[in-house]
Amino acid sequence: MKRIAIDAMGGDHAPKAVVEGVNQALASYNDIEIILYGDETKIREHLTATERVSIVHTDEKINSDDEPAKAIRQKKQASMVLAAKAVKDGEADAVLSAGNTGALLAAGLFVVGRIKGIDRPGLLSTLPSMGGQGFDMLDLGANAESTAKYLHQYAILGSFYAKNVRGVANPRIGLLNNGTEASKGDPLRKETYQLLSEDSTLNFIGNIEARELLNGVADVVVTDGFTGNAVLKTVEGTALSIMGQLKSSINAGGLRAKLGALLLKPSLMTLKQTLDYSDAGGAVLFGLKAPVVKAHGSSDAKSIVSTIRQIRTMLETDVVGQSVQEFSRIEE
Amino acid sequence: MKRIAIDAMGGDHAPKAVVEGVNQALASYNDIEIILYGDETKIREHLTATERVSIVHTDEKINSDDEPAKAIRQKKQASMVLAAKAVKDGEADAVLSAGNTGALLAAGLFVVGRIKGIDRPGLLSTLPSMGGQGFDMLDLGANAESTAKYLHQYAILGSFYAKNVRGVANPRIGLLNNGTEASKGDPLRKETYQLLSEDSTLNFIGNIEARELLNGVADVVVTDGFTGNAVLKTVEGTALSIMGQLKSSINAGGLRAKLGALLLKPSLMTLKQTLDYSDAGGAVLFGLKAPVVKAHGSSDAKSIVSTIRQIRTMLETDVVGQSVQEFSRIEE
Repeated sequence: MKRIAIDAMGGDHAPKAVVEGVNQALASYNDIEIILYGDETKIREHLTATERVSIVHTDEKINSDDEPAKAIRQKKQASMVLAAKAVKDGEADAVLSAGNTGALLAAGLFVVGRIKGIDRPGLLSTLPSMGGQGFDMLDLGANAESTAKYLHQYAILGSFYAKNVRGVANPRIGLLNNGTEASKGDPLRKETYQLLSEDSTLNFIGNIEARELLNGVADVVVTDGFTGNAVLKTVEGTALSIMGQLKSSINAGGLRAKLGALLLKPSLMTLKQTLDYSDAGGAVLFGLKAPVVKAHGSSDAKSIVSTIRQIRTMLETDVVGQSVQEFSRIEE
Repeated sequence: MKRIAIDAMGGDHAPKAVVEGVNQALASYNDIEIILYGDETKIREHLTATERVSIVHTDEKINSDDEPAKAIRQKKQASMVLAAKAVKDGEADAVLSAGNTGALLAAGLFVVGRIKGIDRPGLLSTLPSMGGQGFDMLDLGANAESTAKYLHQYAILGSFYAKNVRGVANPRIGLLNNGTEASKGDPLRKETYQLLSEDSTLNFIGNIEARELLNGVADVVVTDGFTGNAVLKTVEGTALSIMGQLKSSINAGGLRAKLGALLLKPSLMTLKQTLDYSDAGGAVLFGLKAPVVKAHGSSDAKSIVSTIRQIRTMLETDVVGQSVQEFSRIEE
């Protein structure tokens, strides 16, 4: 049985969306057990599942505007903190929250704890590519500052993730850089390029440019948290802006445009589905002793189900256990 | 008379697209004079303008795959180098090339030269925003490494550009960061935030996130060259991927989708025009003693005309002269 501790109070639509997602996931997967942390009365309003689910009541929760490290220190009974503590104490195997990202990073680091040999866990997400296969990128912003050693660790972790969780046979690792030639980039990129080239356990394909990201040029894209955060938000912002602009052009285009949009609806839905990567689950703070996964703040029940499925796969393939082994081998 | 030195041999469609653009620009603006550098026979094949235009013949040119600094040193008679040298020698007021970006940066730095008081010129482009007003961003990759002092200089330069060339009254300066709060970012961002806050000559509006870029949250966006390059290429790549995916969905959608696309054509064209920012001209290597402007490698005649118009505005408003004054004031 895979035991998942879930912060029922995190996210814009909590606890409703979270609990409804839990109901659905429990019906789909009979090898998972869920512990919900939060306001019992509010949780019970939405909970229809009766088996393999329990509630740990708490009145305290972390808000989206709380200062992360401080919140973790001061709100010791917050639903998110209790969920993380359950993993630390061996009562659960993984944590899920759709709440404050910074606080979850802090809870992951200070409560769940790092894998020995990993300096800084990185934030990993699966992003969409136009061919549909997607790619994993990290670090998406767990650390504003990075060294080549961290980036090397991200490459190893990302490769494990793509192989185990997404079933990519020999994941192609690309280093995000300002040009494809080996000599490109700042000292951080040049040093990282060197480390990745020398590591024969990795299928390193060299530098890749941001322009090619969505074309599926790599299965895992390695970058520092500052750049990764900017690139991720640029992809999201550009996609939203274009879809928004298309919508207003259609609205301004009168009957003709509206009829066109109606006829084009299936094609536009295909496009929307390609861009929608909530199916791939949440963002993993990877490099910790257990899966700690952040679902999007605006998650609906469907996204929660996807994130639970993702965690289930992480537990089933023991991707964290394998990472622990790999890094203890490197340490020796 | 504004004298513009143009590398006729740079770009994917040179010299045809360049010369055709020159023909059109000379017909539109009677206060400019063009000196074309390159293969005289090939240039003459396309040149229809007869007044205010001259050719300086050379057999040598810089290729797109030449190593920039080396090319500038060794190909002293290359069309791009001669065009830059014309500015240095006072024979022209500005340089335009659609050729090798790195080589043009090197020619700008080593031949045209920096404005006194500016450490590292930055690459500035006007990008599209969904409201249509656009925004200027720099550095887009002239320097892989930056300091807070460089970023402060970019803010001043960007503000001058937006004010003079785009006519924005009191340009709002935003610092690209991984969150909007003042405390966000790596040490470079924190130090830059401090410098920009203390500079009362700037309309600094604080940190902005990449997700908001295309929504027109700022008139000038300041960032380091590594991040700027990644963000610019992400915007381009995401827009191209989405438009490409939309096209293939339509093609796969049969007659219904094709009819829908036909009806939607005006709306799709509006969207395409919003995203197309070749009208705003090329990328300016800003911080040099004269306008040095890179037109896109794939420029057609229309983009060349836009870039010539942009240079004309830069010369008319004397944005470089004003920057020189400002930085000599700061130096004192």
